[in-house]
Amino acid sequence: MITLNVDLGERSYPIFIGQQLLGDAERVSPCIAGTQVMIVTNETIAPLYLDRTLQAFTDYDPAHVILPDGEQYKTLEILNRIFDELLVQHFDRHSTLVALGGGVIGDMTGFAAACYQRGVDFIQIPTTLLAQVDSSVGGKTGVNHPQGKNMIGAFHQPRCVIVDTDTLKTLDDRQLSAGLAEIIKYGLIRDHDFIAWLEQNMDRLLARDPEATAYAIETSCRSKAAIVAADEKESGVRALLNLGHTFGHAIETGAGYGHWLHGEAVGTGMLMAADLSMRQGWLSEQDVLRVENLLDKAELPTRAPHNMSYERFMELMAVDKKVRAGQVNLVLLKSLGEAVVTADFEPALLRETVEAHRATE
Amino acid sequence: MITLNVDLGERSYPIFIGQQLLGDAERVSPCIAGTQVMIVTNETIAPLYLDRTLQAFTDYDPAHVILPDGEQYKTLEILNRIFDELLVQHFDRHSTLVALGGGVIGDMTGFAAACYQRGVDFIQIPTTLLAQVDSSVGGKTGVNHPQGKNMIGAFHQPRCVIVDTDTLKTLDDRQLSAGLAEIIKYGLIRDHDFIAWLEQNMDRLLARDPEATAYAIETSCRSKAAIVAADEKESGVRALLNLGHTFGHAIETGAGYGHWLHGEAVGTGMLMAADLSMRQGWLSEQDVLRVENLLDKAELPTRAPHNMSYERFMELMAVDKKVRAGQVNLVLLKSLGEAVVTADFEPALLRETVEAHRATE
Repeated sequence: MITLNVDLGERSYPIFIGQQLLGDAERVSPCIAGTQVMIVTNETIAPLYLDRTLQAFTDYDPAHVILPDGEQYKTLEILNRIFDELLVQHFDRHSTLVALGGGVIGDMTGFAAACYQRGVDFIQIPTTLLAQVDSSVGGKTGVNHPQGKNMIGAFHQPRCVIVDTDTLKTLDDRQLSAGLAEIIKYGLIRDHDFIAWLEQNMDRLLARDPEATAYAIETSCRSKAAIVAADEKESGVRALLNLGHTFGHAIETGAGYGHWLHGEAVGTGMLMAADLSMRQGWLSEQDVLRVENLLDKAELPTRAPHNMSYERFMELMAVDKKVRAGQVNLVLLKSLGEAVVTADFEPALLRETVEAHRATE
Repeated sequence: MITLNVDLGERSYPIFIGQQLLGDAERVSPCIAGTQVMIVTNETIAPLYLDRTLQAFTDYDPAHVILPDGEQYKTLEILNRIFDELLVQHFDRHSTLVALGGGVIGDMTGFAAACYQRGVDFIQIPTTLLAQVDSSVGGKTGVNHPQGKNMIGAFHQPRCVIVDTDTLKTLDDRQLSAGLAEIIKYGLIRDHDFIAWLEQNMDRLLARDPEATAYAIETSCRSKAAIVAADEKESGVRALLNLGHTFGHAIETGAGYGHWLHGEAVGTGMLMAADLSMRQGWLSEQDVLRVENLLDKAELPTRAPHNMSYERFMELMAVDKKVRAGQVNLVLLKSLGEAVVTADFEPALLRETVEAHRATE
């Protein structure tokens, strides 16, 4: 087992990465202050991992709530089901919530924990590759709004993150690829050597080779932890983690929540960011081809829906959280392994990028 | 104009108390970081004060949203109307929300600000006496749940609080009395001299004498600011501000939101806390009579609804935020001017208190 630390002063917490961690009481007990524990999971994960997870919490007689599975359920309305259950069961201010699932469950459980009685503790047990390398670490929580992704939420750090890599055995191929998109992201924004490693090892990752997977998760979590420690509330460097996300959120919202996986949309979004960076004169055609090949190897889509016009992209990107005073800010690449946040791009070039990356009919 | 300060390090903020402050751009401008301002108010306050308030924000071309008036609308569903409006109008992460209204508007606007894009700024412009002396200061925000008051919320401090005492001229008598309940609270929990002042000046307060009112607001805000600065997140002394609130929330929830004003329920709740403190041997009968007389003078109710049995009280109090591991904690009085949080009371005595303070049919 590997232990990393997210260094945030009194809100610091460990990330445990290893096998057979789900039922491990020794990891979770130091993170539980009170006596009441509620596990929040979904209909897909519950039959697979709920029983094993409950074993880690037997000292606390844990309750649980099972939500429907999918990004389209990441709403205030479904969030309220968690509050209903907490209140009916008289959960107090010293309770601990446990998120057992992918990014949607982690974001919703974390946000419920941020708001219940103005804040209770929570633990992340991510079961998808995407949640393990990205969304479970760093305290971003929230729900979607019909007008935009993650528009309602809070920064609320977990007490610990438990990454049991055994859970990846049951992950479907599409979800695996979606997670690889976020792993590729760490290479593109800050780690040129990791890009080269991924180019050489993508086949092993797709084959779920345990050693390669553990290395990719560890490398990603190290990057995430370092960035979050440097800029918890995203006033600076943390924004680089949004590479591909402004395009990606537009694709997710435009296609309707639940049609594209978040990681898939981010993958295509990263290629669009790379393409625009090339049109800006920062990347070479060869660089963009490397990005596209890496996404192809990871079995990720590289074209936005055909019906998403430039105007539709602009409309959806105008509600992105990185907009300031009407100006869209994008994360672009100065080189492979070096990202910047910038509003300094030509709208005409952005139009070219969008038109070059729409699927043909 | 009086300026007080809530001392919370980098989250410190001023409270301005005076007349003709609503349209005063000089107070609000230093508190606005971005360019977008949205005023949140309700159907009662909008026709009275929205135009005047807008004058303070003319540099920002402010938007506004008008919610229905009443505690029964302090819900996640109505909160969503604020998010809808912010998103439709493309409000960004550097926006400022302005709460113009009583405690319900302040709590909801503050919570919307806490959650919108994971946190934007907000300004409190309280227009009821209760909001001016209590709820607008200290950063407690949130909404109700059918199972309990303020169960969903956040700590989110405003950038400033603007108390224009002119707004009290249009406050109805019942709302005025409800505010007096929270003013009396500061005397009971920590300021014996202020109790004596209130006994001598209650007539002036009911007559809306500007000098007496300003003194009562200033004294209350000073107490609130000192307590919040000492214990922002309510891990200690801040809990004393909940005198009467555990009983009071039970009355509000039990009677159905909107029937009792919050201050009215707190008034009766404080008398019940005083009564239980007497049964515990801490207060004299004379002390309790002083509390009851003060509430009577302030034209506040002193009896809970007839149909609220001991069992119903216990059921509703069991979801209070001060419950820990199933044990109800109450704020009681060791003496007039000295409150304590304690779980050390006899259930039999609590039953006597409840039965002694139910209205006769």
